[in-house]
Amino acid sequence: MSKKVALGIDYGTESGRAVLVDVENGQELAAVVHKYAHGVIDERLPESGLRLEPDWALQDPNDYLEVIQQAVPAVIKQAGVSVDDVIGVGVDFTACTMLPVKADGTPLCALPKFRANPHSWVKLWKHHAAQPEADRINAVALTRGEGWIDRYGGKVSSEWFFSKALQILNEAPEVYQAADRLIEAADWIVWQLTGVETRNSVTAGYKGMWSKREGFPSRAFLTEVEPGLADIVDTKMSRDIAPVGSRAGSLTAQAAAWMGLRPGTAVAIPSIDAHVAVPATTVAESGRMVMIMGTSTCHMVVGSEEHVIPGMCGYVEDGILPGLIGYEAGQSCVGDHFAWFTETCVPAAYEREAEARGLSVHELLEVKAAALKPGESGLVALDWWNGNRSVLVDADLTGLLIGATLTTRPEEIYRALIEATAFGTRVIIDAFNQHGVPIHELVACGGLPEKNKLLMQIYADVTGLEIKLAASAQATALGAAMFGAVAAGKAAGGYDTIFEAAPRMGRLKDEHYTPDPTVKPVYDQLFAEYLRLHDLFGRGGVDTMKRLKAIKAAARA
Amino acid sequence: MSKKVALGIDYGTESGRAVLVDVENGQELAAVVHKYAHGVIDERLPESGLRLEPDWALQDPNDYLEVIQQAVPAVIKQAGVSVDDVIGVGVDFTACTMLPVKADGTPLCALPKFRANPHSWVKLWKHHAAQPEADRINAVALTRGEGWIDRYGGKVSSEWFFSKALQILNEAPEVYQAADRLIEAADWIVWQLTGVETRNSVTAGYKGMWSKREGFPSRAFLTEVEPGLADIVDTKMSRDIAPVGSRAGSLTAQAAAWMGLRPGTAVAIPSIDAHVAVPATTVAESGRMVMIMGTSTCHMVVGSEEHVIPGMCGYVEDGILPGLIGYEAGQSCVGDHFAWFTETCVPAAYEREAEARGLSVHELLEVKAAALKPGESGLVALDWWNGNRSVLVDADLTGLLIGATLTTRPEEIYRALIEATAFGTRVIIDAFNQHGVPIHELVACGGLPEKNKLLMQIYADVTGLEIKLAASAQATALGAAMFGAVAAGKAAGGYDTIFEAAPRMGRLKDEHYTPDPTVKPVYDQLFAEYLRLHDLFGRGGVDTMKRLKAIKAAARA
Repeated sequence: MSKKVALGIDYGTESGRAVLVDVENGQELAAVVHKYAHGVIDERLPESGLRLEPDWALQDPNDYLEVIQQAVPAVIKQAGVSVDDVIGVGVDFTACTMLPVKADGTPLCALPKFRANPHSWVKLWKHHAAQPEADRINAVALTRGEGWIDRYGGKVSSEWFFSKALQILNEAPEVYQAADRLIEAADWIVWQLTGVETRNSVTAGYKGMWSKREGFPSRAFLTEVEPGLADIVDTKMSRDIAPVGSRAGSLTAQAAAWMGLRPGTAVAIPSIDAHVAVPATTVAESGRMVMIMGTSTCHMVVGSEEHVIPGMCGYVEDGILPGLIGYEAGQSCVGDHFAWFTETCVPAAYEREAEARGLSVHELLEVKAAALKPGESGLVALDWWNGNRSVLVDADLTGLLIGATLTTRPEEIYRALIEATAFGTRVIIDAFNQHGVPIHELVACGGLPEKNKLLMQIYADVTGLEIKLAASAQATALGAAMFGAVAAGKAAGGYDTIFEAAPRMGRLKDEHYTPDPTVKPVYDQLFAEYLRLHDLFGRGGVDTMKRLKAIKAAARA
Repeated sequence: MSKKVALGIDYGTESGRAVLVDVENGQELAAVVHKYAHGVIDERLPESGLRLEPDWALQDPNDYLEVIQQAVPAVIKQAGVSVDDVIGVGVDFTACTMLPVKADGTPLCALPKFRANPHSWVKLWKHHAAQPEADRINAVALTRGEGWIDRYGGKVSSEWFFSKALQILNEAPEVYQAADRLIEAADWIVWQLTGVETRNSVTAGYKGMWSKREGFPSRAFLTEVEPGLADIVDTKMSRDIAPVGSRAGSLTAQAAAWMGLRPGTAVAIPSIDAHVAVPATTVAESGRMVMIMGTSTCHMVVGSEEHVIPGMCGYVEDGILPGLIGYEAGQSCVGDHFAWFTETCVPAAYEREAEARGLSVHELLEVKAAALKPGESGLVALDWWNGNRSVLVDADLTGLLIGATLTTRPEEIYRALIEATAFGTRVIIDAFNQHGVPIHELVACGGLPEKNKLLMQIYADVTGLEIKLAASAQATALGAAMFGAVAAGKAAGGYDTIFEAAPRMGRLKDEHYTPDPTVKPVYDQLFAEYLRLHDLFGRGGVDTMKRLKAIKAAARA
């Protein structure tokens, strides 16, 4: 009796991960991580050594191919399964992570002519240098009264597809002209697997201002933003958008050879990393928010009705699960925040103490911070070290810490940063609750919930909600594999819909976090302080952060 | 030919320093530092182990006697001078540093009955727990329209004498009742040297709301503040205030034996540490601000006219030099700030790098911070880690850092903290300039200018003023010794006035710091941001810091 297996390939910020799962119950059989050779390119361009401006973040598309060529054969070998039992392949990717390519899919950065031009490389999701372009798009949308912008909380982000595309056009028109296609990396990698260019509904909807009913923004709008952008959809993109949960095609002989799989194996329409985690945590109905917590956090909610929620990253039909409205919010600096703090601000004495106690510095900080009472540090932070993705949608906001004294200890700052991200989450939940999409439970997945119990308890206490946990540490890769099983279909041993797959393959832990009612009053007080500062610095009352960013840019120019 | 010698004893926050100087030219002959056995008592009371509240800072008066008993004999031995040539002794002290004593001078904390009561110990200048008492004094002064408060910029500090005295009365009435005298440590130590209780014009004027023309605040005012305080001046203090520059008395046989000096040696009326530094840096005229830069900074200016300058620590006739108005401002967190940062926020990697490069962590930070351009970090801080002494006079203000991102480096924060203290100094200088006391030159002394060239250059650039440097690293001890030489008088080989002594014994280095005009525009921009935040959080626009401090106090209660 052979068990049917699905392959999920999860493209993250620093590495790609190939996971094989049992189609019957979602159990992980094997996983292999492949670190991108070039990682995040944010200082100098490889080979040319060209120095990048602040806020740039690029990647090398060849690193993505290496995940297929190395991690996939390795994971099959490790699991010891027969390739005949691998029925489908699903892919999830960071987004908007996009690149300019030729008509045959060749990335422009692979061409010697363009290799030393940073605009020919992949713009990673956290490339934040297209803020002027986002500002332009927002300004034109506002003056024209474009209705579609309401779906995105009234603001387009510098991270999104048209902001990045317009930056290429503005700063490197020769790259823009030479690009036959501008494409999400998710769709590009599926193109490399199937030989067919497709476009998925998830990145198109969340990052490309597309909707199932209205399509892309009009030519008139794009022309007003910038005449050179007028025909971008028809000449460099596609209006043929496939819903998530459908099949993109089959593995080509070439891709099958790279991966050690059978040619013809089903390949799913790809999705975004955070979005595929939703069914992997069993969530296929409204009221339960899935938080995918890693370097950043994505907040995912599905519903059957459309609601406009200010400052969301977007709501998209077919955006998370087919046939439902998918709501996405996000915090752009969560795990990154604690990593920055641990690497940059923790004294040598703590490193020595951690070593003596057999702990990591993170663990030592957690132990020390857990011994503190809420409020006793007198500190509050605004968690904007990497801007604010929801509900302010402003990459130019920066971090703030208030309340420090000469007796302030590192663990107090660490705890204040954790609390700040929890307050940021509460702002997002409040926005959902106040606009017709009530949230009654949180489900956490990703690397962070596994690592930091203090953080999870603080989130439960600050939000006043119970938090459940994904059973799998690799919920995103599991979700990708689930879409692979759906692409294969029931006849091949998979499932016909993701709603059939979710209760079978998705799983939660028994463990969960319950809010402590005794600390609610002090967290309510601290949250009130957070909210005042949030509105003061984030809603234009005091523009210090913007002016400092301008001074910084001028000083570095 | 025997050279005449004067002894200066400088009582600092952590230690006392005895210095012997040549009366003819101010040259230092020998110096000995004696660290206080109990240092700053801010966590637990010695012996009883009683836990202190936040913001408390006490000392043991016996530690002051040990300076006399140990450092003085040692410095005489080290210098190899004859005791017959030591013509006078001068003392400077931190202030307001005060204690309750019996009529014979015995500190209450030396009595077994009171030893476990924290209110019987010395309240060090940076004891900040008397803020409610300062608030009460300010409120009553305001409603009564007390004119004397204008001399202090409209506000009494929690650090000052009556705030601390009232805290004793409020919280430990039994200690207040048992105290025959409440006295500045400066006057107490001179009492121990001469056998005579005197009171100096400097601490009385700056910390005790006394003025030469009007004396102390009225009995009616004190009664309204708190009836128990009505007779404090007549019963526990003195109205007989001696001007700085005069003689307190002569060494008793007992004190002479402790010190290894001749009985009868002249002893000067004491002064405050920062104030004696002024003549030691040759400054005896208006327009030149002396900055005594150490854990905190004092800003000293003399003038012949009275001007009301908002938020100054005070202006006092006979307050720095006899016959002149002495203006004092202050920043309560300067060297302390950098020490806190270096100990609390600098990662192990920097400690290793410093070691490999043969530098201290401070020096490494200075090297790295010096390589940055002004403005390029995008950071601004409010330097209120220890409250604000001028011009806001509010111990409940706390530190703020704004502009942090995930690429922020330790040296960027370090530089932002240095810049913040420089901006704080500029706020003070601007207040002088705007209120009739123009400043055209800065003279720096104390430990910090010796140690940190980057800091001095930033101060010159931010203020736009030339900065000269005291020749002596021990300007305060030199200044104390100069007052000792004046107490001895010309007939004994000293001087008849401090104005005669200043040009002879005071000295400056040839080295000085000149403002760089090319960085002025960016510093003006950053200062504008500092000033906006300063006024927003410091002048009651946004009371976040106060509320967080209240939440903190409640959480710790």
